[in-house]
Amino acid sequence: MKISRNLSRLTSYKDSFSCRFKNAVITTFNSQRNYTSLENNVTASSDIPKKNVSNEEVRFTTDTYSYLKRNPNFKKLSQDDISFFQSILPSNGLIIENDNNYDDLTSYNIDWLRIHRGKSKLVAKPKTTEQVSNIVKYCNEKKLAIVPQGGNTGLVGGGTPIFDEIIISTKNLNQIREFDPIAGCILEILDNYLAERGHSMPLDIGSKGSCHIGGNVATNAGGVRYLRYGSLHGSILGLEVVLPDGTILDNLSTLRKDNTGYDIKQLFIGSEGTLGIITGVSILAPTRHKAVNVAVLGLNSFKNVQDAFITSKEMLTEILSAFEFWDVLSFRLVKTHLAQSVKFPLEDEYPFYALIETGGSNKDHDEEKLSDFLETAMAKGIVENGVIAQDNTQMKSLWSIREGIPDACMKVGSAYFYDISIPVSVMYKVVEDVTSRLKNAGLFGKNVMDVIGFGHIGDGNLHLSITSKTYSLEIIRLIESCIREWTDKYKGSLSAEHGLGLIKAKILDHSKPKAMVDIMRQIKHNIDPNGIMNPYKFFPYQ
Amino acid sequence: MKISRNLSRLTSYKDSFSCRFKNAVITTFNSQRNYTSLENNVTASSDIPKKNVSNEEVRFTTDTYSYLKRNPNFKKLSQDDISFFQSILPSNGLIIENDNNYDDLTSYNIDWLRIHRGKSKLVAKPKTTEQVSNIVKYCNEKKLAIVPQGGNTGLVGGGTPIFDEIIISTKNLNQIREFDPIAGCILEILDNYLAERGHSMPLDIGSKGSCHIGGNVATNAGGVRYLRYGSLHGSILGLEVVLPDGTILDNLSTLRKDNTGYDIKQLFIGSEGTLGIITGVSILAPTRHKAVNVAVLGLNSFKNVQDAFITSKEMLTEILSAFEFWDVLSFRLVKTHLAQSVKFPLEDEYPFYALIETGGSNKDHDEEKLSDFLETAMAKGIVENGVIAQDNTQMKSLWSIREGIPDACMKVGSAYFYDISIPVSVMYKVVEDVTSRLKNAGLFGKNVMDVIGFGHIGDGNLHLSITSKTYSLEIIRLIESCIREWTDKYKGSLSAEHGLGLIKAKILDHSKPKAMVDIMRQIKHNIDPNGIMNPYKFFPYQ
Repeated sequence: MKISRNLSRLTSYKDSFSCRFKNAVITTFNSQRNYTSLENNVTASSDIPKKNVSNEEVRFTTDTYSYLKRNPNFKKLSQDDISFFQSILPSNGLIIENDNNYDDLTSYNIDWLRIHRGKSKLVAKPKTTEQVSNIVKYCNEKKLAIVPQGGNTGLVGGGTPIFDEIIISTKNLNQIREFDPIAGCILEILDNYLAERGHSMPLDIGSKGSCHIGGNVATNAGGVRYLRYGSLHGSILGLEVVLPDGTILDNLSTLRKDNTGYDIKQLFIGSEGTLGIITGVSILAPTRHKAVNVAVLGLNSFKNVQDAFITSKEMLTEILSAFEFWDVLSFRLVKTHLAQSVKFPLEDEYPFYALIETGGSNKDHDEEKLSDFLETAMAKGIVENGVIAQDNTQMKSLWSIREGIPDACMKVGSAYFYDISIPVSVMYKVVEDVTSRLKNAGLFGKNVMDVIGFGHIGDGNLHLSITSKTYSLEIIRLIESCIREWTDKYKGSLSAEHGLGLIKAKILDHSKPKAMVDIMRQIKHNIDPNGIMNPYKFFPYQ
Repeated sequence: MKISRNLSRLTSYKDSFSCRFKNAVITTFNSQRNYTSLENNVTASSDIPKKNVSNEEVRFTTDTYSYLKRNPNFKKLSQDDISFFQSILPSNGLIIENDNNYDDLTSYNIDWLRIHRGKSKLVAKPKTTEQVSNIVKYCNEKKLAIVPQGGNTGLVGGGTPIFDEIIISTKNLNQIREFDPIAGCILEILDNYLAERGHSMPLDIGSKGSCHIGGNVATNAGGVRYLRYGSLHGSILGLEVVLPDGTILDNLSTLRKDNTGYDIKQLFIGSEGTLGIITGVSILAPTRHKAVNVAVLGLNSFKNVQDAFITSKEMLTEILSAFEFWDVLSFRLVKTHLAQSVKFPLEDEYPFYALIETGGSNKDHDEEKLSDFLETAMAKGIVENGVIAQDNTQMKSLWSIREGIPDACMKVGSAYFYDISIPVSVMYKVVEDVTSRLKNAGLFGKNVMDVIGFGHIGDGNLHLSITSKTYSLEIIRLIESCIREWTDKYKGSLSAEHGLGLIKAKILDHSKPKAMVDIMRQIKHNIDPNGIMNPYKFFPYQ
């Protein structure tokens, strides 16, 4: 079916919805370069999250990662400590372990994916930077370990305690201070706030309804606007950070340019809570698009996906906001498992799909550019079919196919998610190679159900997911050795946007030159000499 | 004169040219907060660059900055050292002081502005990263101090030696390694290289014909595309750096996303050669614009300039590439002193001028947007008059008015240049305040000739220049105390894009919180324990 000037239009979309990345197994990476044994650091089969798993069913992280030992230099929480915290915060700003608040406390000890469970006995929810400072200063003096926690939406176990670390939640640090400088709030609230003022946030991620901007900055979150607005390293204008000794580092600048000294704030962007607690963020908010268009395309090959991306960069250049892709197996998973909630605009199946979003200031111009692009791409045989959303509801609906993929994977049985950076030219070869290795090992069909590829073409960021009937170490071993060969060969990254956290801490030594890791350790040691900030994470064998 | 749909067009432009920022007095900032005495750290009147000043007439930096003492821990160059360098580099890769090469060696000892002159006896021009590594390793072992030097186009004295530091020039590190990753080359050559491939560099500065990309990164250069593409902290994908101990830090990644560890490369962006020598750069090169438009507008007030900027952000959003402004006094200076080379398209004078550049993928769309914008801005009484360039020659000609301003200042007698970040809303008040203080002090007309304001509206970056018949400490004292009051009050920056170098090193303590400067010092100490990298610069009282 060929479409010329009159592109097929969606007409049947009636409701909008969104599927979020609710729970998943994020598998670990083996730290040993010979890939022989994973037993010590993988999640055991009992950890696979089930739907509606109860708190008790989530295994303690210390049981899963049995090689982790509590640092004996850290003090244990005493009644004196509790009294101190009570002197700083009102009763509704503290959760202290007792018989009546088990579920409340546990909700901070268990992560979003429900595969990590810490043993913290105290959650502090300060409302002001000064309170954060006083609490951190006290913890540093007493050597009480800390886990900073934002929206608790991380995917690598970085935001929950391992042992009895004190949780400092930024939940109450949610004041929008000024139009330009913005403090620790939920991303979606910020974006809505800015929408009313004709601007938008330069990042958009699946967890935007829950995640905190402080956490986004601490983890250098990526997402679907990255293609347009780039990294937070370019968008963050200033930060306020409470350092591990309680010092408030006030660099909440709103200046676009300031060449006086090393750009120290950059260190905290992506530091995952290991260098301090981000209490204030000043971020560059681009003008909101007056016109937004979303199209989903059907394509015959991954080569066509690449060509469509190159053509879209040429023809949509300044209005291209997102270029996402998924394969037919991703599509079938969503179709099978989320049929109730996701609509499928293209009647026929295609080996690949691409979602293109444009954003600009002139609706007519953008629609003309998009039509020209689609016409050219179809005339050249790059694109087989396509639909353009006609309103906001349809836009959300098209996005929900892409956003529903991880959730659909979770319905199968076991799911393993990977997040790698790799040149686009070889991106899908990784998916094919993992598939063929699993086939050659006789695992496909027997236990392995699907190997699917989707993600951010525009950023060279592949999300690779594998599903199986039952959890299998053999499968993980095969996948990981395969993926690592590809990222090694093409200087890729084993964590494109999810960070290191607990799960991926062990890849740091493998991922970066020793000279860089040495500098990281020196910085960590200088800024946090007692090591109280988010211990056991980020650095291997800390 | 009102222009409606048919905007007045330039028709008389016949030739193109460009005026570059060739020489100037960049005044110093007093490090003492009471502003009482500048004598110790200003350039004396004999340092004012004259046209065609001879090498001998440029005063030694050690005479000007007499408080600087040579670090006695640094070794002096010996014949053994020279022999070692000769074993690493061919004879044309070394300049060693002798009777016959005075001018050649001096050209590396004197900066572009011809106000700094070092006493180096050796210039090394390695061709490979390994050669840089071997030289630096040797210098570190022997404690020979180093100045890394790119295109020597800096404005704050950061790239030339003070005493007998060895100059390591990156002039021969000029290979373009791949289409994506780019090494230490002249900016304009890179941009031309990318133009042939449909891309462009994400930065553009006046010195592009001479400056090196390694130096641009080391100084975090800003420029006229900053509004569109933002800071190098967002555009740099990877760096190769030779550390002070000779280690080659290979992080020449081309990945857009990589969340494994602290983003150490960010430390080197803007480190001004104090942490290592950048030998390779991988940079994100945006798609080149198929359509470029340049317009110059005449406006009646600075309020109108602000309104024009806001309106252009709203109506030109995704195609707005640059928004520069200058005042009528800037205009008159250019008209008076550069009449031979600069054409003036608007017949009447206006209190303010703005230059708008757009870049996009569709000529018709862009022209329609620009016309709509101008029509709206004129209908609302924001803009009085305007011209749009009809071809490349006219575009360059319009740009040359803006780019000619510093050169025109230099023709007056003495000129003092400042580079500050300050909220746009108060930006021009700084110019007015400096003017009125000089008037109140009875200096205006007597010695002071002009106080002019121009710069990058879109980045909140004001270039403020003062001209006088003769050089005057009294004038500097008045200007600096005034500017500092404004930047203090509005949390501005005393060096928006020029860096600290030698001249502004002393403002670091004033500009950044102690906690940040402490972290900077720790990083410097960890990475360069012998302090051999670009000593006496950046940090005050090092």
